[in-house]
Amino acid sequence: MSLPSLARRAPARPLGAAPTRPDNIAFDSGHAFPGVLPDLTAEATRALTEFRSETLQYAPRPGLTPLREWIAKYLRADGTKVAPGDILVTNGAKHAIELICKLLLDEGDTIVVTVPTYFTAIPIFRSFGVRFLEVAQDADGLDVEQLEALIAERERKGERLPKFIYNVPDFHNPTGVTMSLPRRQALVELAARKGIYILEDSPYRKVRFEGADVPSVKALDPGGLVFQCGTFSKLMAPGLRVGWVATTPDMVGRLIQLKADGGSCPLTQRIIFEFCRSGRLEAHTSRIQETYRRNRDHMVAALRRDLPAATFAVPEGGYYIWVTLPEDVDGDEVTTRAAAGGATVIPGSKFLALPEAGHPRNTVRVAFSHATPEEIDEGIRRLAAAFDAVVSGAPALATPTGSQTR
Amino acid sequence: MSLPSLARRAPARPLGAAPTRPDNIAFDSGHAFPGVLPDLTAEATRALTEFRSETLQYAPRPGLTPLREWIAKYLRADGTKVAPGDILVTNGAKHAIELICKLLLDEGDTIVVTVPTYFTAIPIFRSFGVRFLEVAQDADGLDVEQLEALIAERERKGERLPKFIYNVPDFHNPTGVTMSLPRRQALVELAARKGIYILEDSPYRKVRFEGADVPSVKALDPGGLVFQCGTFSKLMAPGLRVGWVATTPDMVGRLIQLKADGGSCPLTQRIIFEFCRSGRLEAHTSRIQETYRRNRDHMVAALRRDLPAATFAVPEGGYYIWVTLPEDVDGDEVTTRAAAGGATVIPGSKFLALPEAGHPRNTVRVAFSHATPEEIDEGIRRLAAAFDAVVSGAPALATPTGSQTR
Repeated sequence: MSLPSLARRAPARPLGAAPTRPDNIAFDSGHAFPGVLPDLTAEATRALTEFRSETLQYAPRPGLTPLREWIAKYLRADGTKVAPGDILVTNGAKHAIELICKLLLDEGDTIVVTVPTYFTAIPIFRSFGVRFLEVAQDADGLDVEQLEALIAERERKGERLPKFIYNVPDFHNPTGVTMSLPRRQALVELAARKGIYILEDSPYRKVRFEGADVPSVKALDPGGLVFQCGTFSKLMAPGLRVGWVATTPDMVGRLIQLKADGGSCPLTQRIIFEFCRSGRLEAHTSRIQETYRRNRDHMVAALRRDLPAATFAVPEGGYYIWVTLPEDVDGDEVTTRAAAGGATVIPGSKFLALPEAGHPRNTVRVAFSHATPEEIDEGIRRLAAAFDAVVSGAPALATPTGSQTR
Repeated sequence: MSLPSLARRAPARPLGAAPTRPDNIAFDSGHAFPGVLPDLTAEATRALTEFRSETLQYAPRPGLTPLREWIAKYLRADGTKVAPGDILVTNGAKHAIELICKLLLDEGDTIVVTVPTYFTAIPIFRSFGVRFLEVAQDADGLDVEQLEALIAERERKGERLPKFIYNVPDFHNPTGVTMSLPRRQALVELAARKGIYILEDSPYRKVRFEGADVPSVKALDPGGLVFQCGTFSKLMAPGLRVGWVATTPDMVGRLIQLKADGGSCPLTQRIIFEFCRSGRLEAHTSRIQETYRRNRDHMVAALRRDLPAATFAVPEGGYYIWVTLPEDVDGDEVTTRAAAGGATVIPGSKFLALPEAGHPRNTVRVAFSHATPEEIDEGIRRLAAAFDAVVSGAPALATPTGSQTR
């Protein structure tokens, strides 16, 4: 028996989980801090008794009505003019990204991504056969002037314009940078003028420890240009797998035809709605902000103490610090050696949509979200030891085959 | 501002929910009977306390290990030789179908479907740009001899063979037919000989009221040929949105790279596992079987009494009766009129992958799963009244714009 071939873009090899040390300290994942996982038993009990006929049957395809109303109100309080009909509930924000790709992308289309960009989005984009147009970032976020020049160059060459611009404007993953308001305004103006959609991926917006909110890109939308993706993963808990897209009723009506999942889980939607409705979210958000601020401060101190050769910007929110090592130090090598030493991070090379483009590779992303202060101290010591070993020319280790990170 | 175009295969129009009468009786949905929705509060409380750090963080990408072990054991008890590593947990069976399409299909590939076929799968397949090769069914299920002839014809013409054969062999949706063992054996033999995968969609297998189990197609798999999709939607409750694929570890490792959802929800997985582990599933399955047998019997009686012009086979399980009306009666017209009269069904035309192929359209699918016996009586009276009105030549009504059915 000879089995038929897989799809052209099917993964060439199966992915397994990379082995880690039993005492591994994980700086590689976007897991929540265990101490801030909320107690949802009351909400779940209510959802499974009073709302049993809702939570155990198929949900309305765009999402539970009260949850869509709540999300719209929440976004309006954030300055975004949306109504419940503009909201589609999804199985987390990554699912939202995938659905938007399905709606917008044909094979061979080009999309704009930053250097570096969110690494989990890269294979989603690739699975649609896209080409990447990379644009730089600085301390103010995505470089809109450079993007305008790149677009002008395509126009001169008669090439098709990108279909959308993908960005994480708040506490960028992986760099932690927040895009300034003038840049956001320039981005929306450019996109509207050229007819390019914007995909604003915004999981960390409320995980802000200090500084003032910048209006969301969606809040600047002149109408139907910006798809904003949000999630309860960072607000409440990753395991709930509920996110959303804020767009237009027209797009919601098209997206639900592409959302082949039988509706998102009404049980988790109802649990979330009950949590938010009762006012628990506000106190929980404060607790998250305090916890992650503490973790960030602890990690900043540990990095300054034990890895003084590294440079980094201190993020005002989010989960991550983007660590730049001396120019000649390879982030992949440090990552491999750190994993062997019991601390997992993600090398900067994973965040490159075009890894072959010759970008610097002397970076790693460290997440401060999941570990305790004590683990942060010990983990950064292990990372520093790995760095020292690489710098001192220790022989390279074999790269692990896969990992389970977000 | 001019917005860019959508993807070539994006839906042309937004989909809205069709309005129904407030007292509508729904025979169109695959909803569970409300009286058999289990009480899951104990399982949820345990999941959210004892297992909080598991259920509120990201899940392992292939699914929770104990649930994969349980599913494998469950399938082995059903005669299917699988190990936990062969199982991928998905967000319901439709999500499993979509992932398998992503793994196997390139634009322009051909797949085999029955006439009629499961209507929710059709847009999923279409979204991958496939062509359909339709094959007939009879009382023994998919006509393998006809399929062999169609394949031979393609070979003579030098056309590429289909990539996979899609079928619901147990209590087929919509026809209720169960494929006989000789047909299953012939199908697997043909597929293995020609190198064509089989996608066995098996949501109803345990919803059998009478007659003996036929071995699953997966149980006949010579190795890696059959992807079997299952779900807890019909075993426990649709709202849980947890299904699975049984395939090979190699394919599981590839599928998780295409599964861009951050892992399926660990909370619902743990609730399901606790329910199954404690032995509640067995009693629950018996209750489901009894309830749906009663509903089926009631609907059979109502159809015979109030719609004697219709013919149908009495299914041994599942949720649906496939009603054939006299040849000159259009199922779409009856459906539209029945909805106006307060009973929703699905017209047979929706179950055609190639609606333009000139197939008979004098059919409707009625689900007996959701309604009470009293509602079944009243709903079939309404359906019969709609049928009478169409037969007596009442002017046609406008077709509703959309629906929310499975």
